[in-house]
Amino acid sequence: MILNEIISIIRDSRHIAILPHVSADGDALGSCFALGLALRRLGKDVHVYLEEEVPYVYSFLPGQEAAKVYPVETIKNHDVIIALDTGDLGRLGKRADIFGSSPVTVNIDHHATNSAFAGYNHVDTASAAVGEIIYQMLMLMGVKMDKDISTCLYVAIAADTGGFRFSNTTSVTHRIAGDLINNGIDVADISRKVFDSTSLAKVQLMGLAIHSLELLENGKVAVITVTEEMMQQSGAADEDCDGLVNIGRNIRGVEVAVLIKQKGSEEFRINLRSNTYVDVSAIAARFSGGGHRRAAGCTLQGTWKDAGSRLLAQIRDVL
Amino acid sequence: MILNEIISIIRDSRHIAILPHVSADGDALGSCFALGLALRRLGKDVHVYLEEEVPYVYSFLPGQEAAKVYPVETIKNHDVIIALDTGDLGRLGKRADIFGSSPVTVNIDHHATNSAFAGYNHVDTASAAVGEIIYQMLMLMGVKMDKDISTCLYVAIAADTGGFRFSNTTSVTHRIAGDLINNGIDVADISRKVFDSTSLAKVQLMGLAIHSLELLENGKVAVITVTEEMMQQSGAADEDCDGLVNIGRNIRGVEVAVLIKQKGSEEFRINLRSNTYVDVSAIAARFSGGGHRRAAGCTLQGTWKDAGSRLLAQIRDVL
Repeated sequence: MILNEIISIIRDSRHIAILPHVSADGDALGSCFALGLALRRLGKDVHVYLEEEVPYVYSFLPGQEAAKVYPVETIKNHDVIIALDTGDLGRLGKRADIFGSSPVTVNIDHHATNSAFAGYNHVDTASAAVGEIIYQMLMLMGVKMDKDISTCLYVAIAADTGGFRFSNTTSVTHRIAGDLINNGIDVADISRKVFDSTSLAKVQLMGLAIHSLELLENGKVAVITVTEEMMQQSGAADEDCDGLVNIGRNIRGVEVAVLIKQKGSEEFRINLRSNTYVDVSAIAARFSGGGHRRAAGCTLQGTWKDAGSRLLAQIRDVL
Repeated sequence: MILNEIISIIRDSRHIAILPHVSADGDALGSCFALGLALRRLGKDVHVYLEEEVPYVYSFLPGQEAAKVYPVETIKNHDVIIALDTGDLGRLGKRADIFGSSPVTVNIDHHATNSAFAGYNHVDTASAAVGEIIYQMLMLMGVKMDKDISTCLYVAIAADTGGFRFSNTTSVTHRIAGDLINNGIDVADISRKVFDSTSLAKVQLMGLAIHSLELLENGKVAVITVTEEMMQQSGAADEDCDGLVNIGRNIRGVEVAVLIKQKGSEEFRINLRSNTYVDVSAIAARFSGGGHRRAAGCTLQGTWKDAGSRLLAQIRDVL
């Protein structure tokens, strides 16, 4: 079992580097910080190299003492380097070089598309989050879990399962979450920070987005439009558009939700979601986009009058 | 152990009535339907008597064949009647009479304030939801859990823990949820129906509420105002105001969130929430209202100019 080999390697190493993917999310950061905390507890010299600063939402996570944004001059020689939640080398961004220069490389992930880019690859696609794999690894290593490690792992798992709501949530996910709660973590406080905390700009963008909401085709299609003016008016950042399309998708009776994001005068970024039967990836493909059956995207060129009516015609065809 | 006595009583009974509290929520309905399904499986004649129709959000729950809104003429004699999730007799509304007229009465609940109003009372305040107690009871009875029963219990538990996010969530909660998932329930579908499904009117009310949002006191106080005109414009119902106060509470930097709901020209219903240190129940008490430290409410009389400034003065005092 490759996980046992990885554990042996870690036991025999002293200088260890841990890398999450670029634009690190809750699972990547929580897993890296938890592993870092545990290995430092075992007397290891551990560094977590990040591509970007930790986003505000995860700034409360313990274990960030050893974490820093990657600057070449700080990189020392490591006995082993471990990539977490990283599907392929490209997802390490500028840090792919550090990874390649390490004598021993490890890749621990749960993406089915993982390219097995390391010397030792443990890819468990049944795990909802890499946090689940790190939990099992620390159990196998006999690490005593504390509140800090447990908080990191809980956030990793909660983030990648949408708070135990996505279809990747298994009975193992819940059993691990239950064990972590027994280590004294503050579920209500963590949940509020991860799921409920938002910026004023994002709330105001949401208000403007709702104001733009239109229901078409007897309420089966919901369209939300975000203009550059709305972005300026709310002071929102690009990432604040994340999730806006779900406002439309969640309305009862809606099958297809569309988010139109204006980029300049004749370019429109389109997000598509469906609820039960429409394959939105097929619609996106007509416009050189892609995605999954229930979530896809594409970019339209031209005037909105023209581009929008072509898009709506495609949607109307499959309703 | 009283739960074993209750199980014996149920085993020896044929005609069984089950009652949730008035304005039944996910825990009350899910628990009643799950218990009803299980007892019918054991050959019992089971009726679930409701005070009101099942809300749309829970209309997908299995086990509603035996459920009906209480009409006197349909009530038959029962060997035993079981109240679930019901803190006191008053919470049975018009059905308190049926309860009193039964030869054997059972009360299964998790509220610390439960008044032990039945002949047999099992109140487990450590349970996050009555759904957890019913799960344990069905295990003790050796009932084979299926997808329908599991769906009802999962909804009961998910609803009362805010999707495993409230502080009442324990390791037992997660262990039970994990077991229920093993019975084939569709977590993603259930979660979408329970947590994400909404009406167009509610979305539009949310948009208007955000438009009214004001931050005061250097962003520590968020105020949302809902006027009668906004209710008419959106077509929203009174219950659609639930949760609007959290839009303000969730904004970073906010300590106290206020929702002002206009009722007539000189009456205002106030909802108060706080995040970390302000005791909003003390503020509400100044205006003859009440609640908890982090969630409270009161009613103000007079012109808004006058009443509002008195309320804000109280809030400013404790910031």
